[in-house]
Amino acid sequence: MRMKKAGLEKVKAIATVGNPVVYGEWIHHKEKPTVLFYGHYDVQPPDPLDQWESKPFEMSVRDGNLYGRGVADNKAPHLSHVLGIEAILKKEKILPVNVKFLIEGEEEVGSANFPRMLKANEKLVKSDVAFVSDGIMFSDAPVIEYGLRGLVCFELAVKCLKKDVHSGSFGGVVDNAPMVLSYIISRMKDRKGRIRIPGIYDKLRKVGLGEQKILAKSETPTSEILENTGAKSTFGENGYKNIIRTGARPSLDVNGISSGYTGEGMKTIIPSEARAKMSMRIVPNLKADYVKKQISTFIKKIAPKTCEVSVEFPDGGDPVLFDRNSKEYDDAKQALKETFGKEPKMKLVGGSVGAVTDMKQILGINSIFTGFALPDCGMHSPNEKLPIGNFLKGIELTIRYLKKLA
Amino acid sequence: MRMKKAGLEKVKAIATVGNPVVYGEWIHHKEKPTVLFYGHYDVQPPDPLDQWESKPFEMSVRDGNLYGRGVADNKAPHLSHVLGIEAILKKEKILPVNVKFLIEGEEEVGSANFPRMLKANEKLVKSDVAFVSDGIMFSDAPVIEYGLRGLVCFELAVKCLKKDVHSGSFGGVVDNAPMVLSYIISRMKDRKGRIRIPGIYDKLRKVGLGEQKILAKSETPTSEILENTGAKSTFGENGYKNIIRTGARPSLDVNGISSGYTGEGMKTIIPSEARAKMSMRIVPNLKADYVKKQISTFIKKIAPKTCEVSVEFPDGGDPVLFDRNSKEYDDAKQALKETFGKEPKMKLVGGSVGAVTDMKQILGINSIFTGFALPDCGMHSPNEKLPIGNFLKGIELTIRYLKKLA
Repeated sequence: MRMKKAGLEKVKAIATVGNPVVYGEWIHHKEKPTVLFYGHYDVQPPDPLDQWESKPFEMSVRDGNLYGRGVADNKAPHLSHVLGIEAILKKEKILPVNVKFLIEGEEEVGSANFPRMLKANEKLVKSDVAFVSDGIMFSDAPVIEYGLRGLVCFELAVKCLKKDVHSGSFGGVVDNAPMVLSYIISRMKDRKGRIRIPGIYDKLRKVGLGEQKILAKSETPTSEILENTGAKSTFGENGYKNIIRTGARPSLDVNGISSGYTGEGMKTIIPSEARAKMSMRIVPNLKADYVKKQISTFIKKIAPKTCEVSVEFPDGGDPVLFDRNSKEYDDAKQALKETFGKEPKMKLVGGSVGAVTDMKQILGINSIFTGFALPDCGMHSPNEKLPIGNFLKGIELTIRYLKKLA
Repeated sequence: MRMKKAGLEKVKAIATVGNPVVYGEWIHHKEKPTVLFYGHYDVQPPDPLDQWESKPFEMSVRDGNLYGRGVADNKAPHLSHVLGIEAILKKEKILPVNVKFLIEGEEEVGSANFPRMLKANEKLVKSDVAFVSDGIMFSDAPVIEYGLRGLVCFELAVKCLKKDVHSGSFGGVVDNAPMVLSYIISRMKDRKGRIRIPGIYDKLRKVGLGEQKILAKSETPTSEILENTGAKSTFGENGYKNIIRTGARPSLDVNGISSGYTGEGMKTIIPSEARAKMSMRIVPNLKADYVKKQISTFIKKIAPKTCEVSVEFPDGGDPVLFDRNSKEYDDAKQALKETFGKEPKMKLVGGSVGAVTDMKQILGINSIFTGFALPDCGMHSPNEKLPIGNFLKGIELTIRYLKKLA
């Protein structure tokens, strides 16, 4: 396979209960650091198929772009690292540092088995820094995403009655589950966008003026948010830039809500129960477990005595923040600058990427989370593409980064 | 058919766009009042079939009860009026007053075509009082239901975004439709059970002390409400008996709510829109049109500028209150007392019965809204029954009432 041909050694598939993870290494230095290249070979479904201009699973080249499902997300980027290594080995027979590869097969479905695999193979995968090119660069500059928000998912259930009852017979004497749920939800966040659950804001990491200035270069213009979402106006905490609101502040959303009759026409019932799926994005120094406790306590406190109110937490993960003032970061910034001819912009990401957080939590290492796909490359969409030039820059970047790290 | 055999005349089916209405009359007095007997021949579906101890559509007799679908709701009760009339005519060849019959076929699905039929046949159906035995008597006393709440159904729709978006990317910068909906709902009724829409309480008819005393005899014990609904405690306006809360006060309920992802597991989206079906039960002197206007104005006032909020009114009807201090009421009370050996209890009903309201609004007549079915007769349930004794009392009552009215 390509990794072996490139000169990587001990190439093998590490089994998980799901899809296996491909491993490979080149370890011949005793005193040099080890870079762990992370990527994924699984891709999004190609649907809708009729919108593809060429076959999704046969790569084609048009107008200087590679086209095909997974070409940007994430096959060409992680292949560029393999080719970069091959180039060095061909010319110099030796790499400037040690490298390892982990190419997993479940990134698009949440990397559920990745942390267990890391723990089970901790010695094998032990490294000094991870390099991940699964992100999206800016159209005018390269990027390093140096932090990701964590996530606490929870499900609220309100049960007031043993069955739906007639709103004529009982309207005025029994409580209404969707109204109780609405009340609870409206108590959790105010109409200024501020979360009202105690203990959420007092622990937050302060973003200093210097970091604010750096982040301002990655600011998403409000006009872009409105265009992408169709919102009439933005809505969030006053006094913060959008990049801070999505990257360095917690946010609370209802993801779904259901109760009673929702078909055609009317059915004048008092529904017996109501449910909401909610999620909070969290930032340092909040921990998922602490947030869960705060949510539980708050719900318990405000839940009316007329109903059973329960909260469950099916999912959650801590936020992650890498040390952007480290040698591995300085080297990466320098390599990106030389490769793309521009200073990389530094960004905090609103979402979570499980594998990156896992590598921090389990292996204790920073990730250089970057990417060569452009915003219009259509990751997850039909006609996914990657400019050939960016693919070649990925190879260049790999070579430069390994040399700087040495 | 049975009505003709009993001596009723001009028996015919009046066509509607739905099921026809059966008409019959006996009009031979010039100076005497006309009683309009209303009933319905349609029934609820018999499901679940396996819980029936005898065939639902073959009447059977067990332990002094008639069993079968529709026996209590409403075939035996309106048949008892026909038989009462037959009995008088057989013996005396003449009725003490004029009578008309309207037996419709769409009561169980809302009597949607009944008002148009009344308007189209106003002269034919013109009467002085309606007699309706479609209610449920108390286990220890007969009943007259002298008022029914009206109903305003409405549907709230909140649209904040053109599509569902990722809560990681946009959590903190755009508004959340189910949260806006929750906010609006929680502003409409407070946690003391009081509706916060302006103009709802200032127009209400005051229930005087005398009427309160009369209604207190029809009070539903809280224990019965808790048992029937499974509620942990009642919830409603402080300082009112249950019969007042459900009969003489407005109530507001959410009937159903939906937004976003509601399947298994989590999907961390910000849903683009959210919807709620709601209904307000209204009492004199509120009119449905006035209430709709108040709701619209209130929603408009509190709707956040971040979203499109719309309200639609698919359905609605005014409340109705009959003149319980009238000769037709005095006669009915007396006839019920003599027939059942007990003073009838006077009740205000929380729900709406379209036909009864229609007869008040279109024909301008009071209804004597009573019934011989007992609370345990299982109207709408398997093994629907009516005690034969109550059926016979229906015949007696018919005879007595017609004689008293004369």
